Amino acid sequence: MTIKSGQKIKLSTIADGLGVSTATVSLALRDSPLIAEETRNRIKQHAQALGYIYNRRAASLRTSRSGIIGVMVHDIMNPFFAEILRSIEIELDRNGHTFILGNHYDQPEKQRRFIETLLQLGADGVIMSPAICTPVADINLAEANGLPVVFIARRVEDLKAPVFRGDDAYGIELATRHLISLGHRRIAMIGGTDYTSTGRDRYRGYQQAMSQAGLEVKPEWRLAGPRTKQGGFDIAPRFLALADKPTAAVCYNDLAAIGLMNGVARAGHSPGEDISVTGYDNLEEAAIAIPALTTLWNGQGEAGRRAARALLDLLNGQPVPHEQELIRPQLHIRHSTAAPKER
Amino acid sequence: MTIKSGQKIKLSTIADGLGVSTATVSLALRDSPLIAEETRNRIKQHAQALGYIYNRRAASLRTSRSGIIGVMVHDIMNPFFAEILRSIEIELDRNGHTFILGNHYDQPEKQRRFIETLLQLGADGVIMSPAICTPVADINLAEANGLPVVFIARRVEDLKAPVFRGDDAYGIELATRHLISLGHRRIAMIGGTDYTSTGRDRYRGYQQAMSQAGLEVKPEWRLAGPRTKQGGFDIAPRFLALADKPTAAVCYNDLAAIGLMNGVARAGHSPGEDISVTGYDNLEEAAIAIPALTTLWNGQGEAGRRAARALLDLLNGQPVPHEQELIRPQLHIRHSTAAPKER
Repeated sequence: MTIKSGQKIKLSTIADGLGVSTATVSLALRDSPLIAEETRNRIKQHAQALGYIYNRRAASLRTSRSGIIGVMVHDIMNPFFAEILRSIEIELDRNGHTFILGNHYDQPEKQRRFIETLLQLGADGVIMSPAICTPVADINLAEANGLPVVFIARRVEDLKAPVFRGDDAYGIELATRHLISLGHRRIAMIGGTDYTSTGRDRYRGYQQAMSQAGLEVKPEWRLAGPRTKQGGFDIAPRFLALADKPTAAVCYNDLAAIGLMNGVARAGHSPGEDISVTGYDNLEEAAIAIPALTTLWNGQGEAGRRAARALLDLLNGQPVPHEQELIRPQLHIRHSTAAPKER
Repeated sequence: MTIKSGQKIKLSTIADGLGVSTATVSLALRDSPLIAEETRNRIKQHAQALGYIYNRRAASLRTSRSGIIGVMVHDIMNPFFAEILRSIEIELDRNGHTFILGNHYDQPEKQRRFIETLLQLGADGVIMSPAICTPVADINLAEANGLPVVFIARRVEDLKAPVFRGDDAYGIELATRHLISLGHRRIAMIGGTDYTSTGRDRYRGYQQAMSQAGLEVKPEWRLAGPRTKQGGFDIAPRFLALADKPTAAVCYNDLAAIGLMNGVARAGHSPGEDISVTGYDNLEEAAIAIPALTTLWNGQGEAGRRAARALLDLLNGQPVPHEQELIRPQLHIRHSTAAPKER
């Protein structure tokens, strides 16, 4: 058996060569008394013959690679990230990288601390959805110290970098045009914020679709903020009390939309009949919401996969364009949207 | 300024001493051209005077501590873990530890690979909710190699170890007794599995409460499996078609309960009126579900906090009891439960 110089030798390579389990190899290399001495010696000799280095920390001082990739999002509990994280994980797993996950809760200080930790651990790179108001200097800190950054879901204003995200303006335009085609004329936009590129782009898409149809865009019909179920639920009374009584709500994401529908139902109205609602993300639960939610597939998995590939390409010295790659959303029409009823 | 030998010197200590930001210190210590040479030298001298060691990998080869703690659960996207992870994070943050998160998706092989990675990174310990059918040998692998293990939410059969979890049998007993007190006699148990300690304990609690009230426990009234919204939603038709038409469902968790309520509503019934439903976990969204869900507070945050403290105690050489610590659940009564209606 020949192993190329610099190629990573895995426990499974050693295990396969001897017909034992990787757990046995792992224990033997650490001199565990759980493995008979004779077996231990046989495994260690074989490992040595293959050039295996057990201590990854010691190894990483010699080579410049630790095999660690940082992944950071604002809230791992948001199911929107589920698909992204899963596809990143599959891609990194396949390439033998370790995946370290961090939450920044949209706090730039927490994000910077995570970047510092990655630098200290000698991580190879980071894939991140940047916090609101991320200072360009914090990204430069990473890059200047040999930690390449690839962005998902959001971009940082005034920074040239690889970004993988859905085409938010286009997606919301699809949702808004769908409502207009059903006959809605007074349409509110619920949730999101101007502090993120996603929030700005989605509001712009809504404005464009309304203007193109010759409909009025009233600033008071934008209820910014909600991005969670609780947020959507809490804003329902304000939505229902809006002047001119909009008959439909384009929501920033599925969570806000489901929360809004629950809040509308709690107030005695029938979402999908009295009030039409659209979501964004096509989360698993969109299809089982009451009523089933009309929403946009956002290409989350695709964005995660492409971001992981881009980072691996960068690490292999291959050029990666420092620009946005937009994934085209698709509209899924379900039962939360219907022709308007006068309220 | 005196720093005790062995005490960790942080970037903020250096920064505070010089009145600069930690980002500046971080950049200077890495010879970043973004910081003026004079400032860089001043910072490096001060850091050296304090005995600061930049490279954590180099440092961790000399001391036996890496400052890394692994945390592993079956699915980080399950909001049940949100509170647990947040409280662990707060506790570890406060103690200057880095938090590495892993998903095992209830696959013991994936769990073992994560343990091996932690061993290779020289992690200090691991807090985990063990995968279904975890082999005791995999936990011994960690312990035998100096990686102490603390369990949350579930325990491993036949293994003595510190475990922090809610009192599942007692919690389900509370839910079942609440339904019985409302007048229900035919009560089904939806979700969970005998492959986890949680699933076994919750089914036992349901059986106990039924038996104590002199009510029949029919095996066919247990619909095992669902632990997600989709699972609860999908099983609704089977629940509605059960012989003897149970008037209430005790659900394994909030996700299955909310899914079941949606499925019951989709089939044209009114959850909370025709059918009473209880959840478990008291997730944030339990209160905004339609109808608002009667459920049990499970002490998630408390379990996470205690588990993190126990691990830190172990690392500081303090004894920690190798047994289960059960947190007492509390019933929250909302609108998903009412007196039975004949169906």
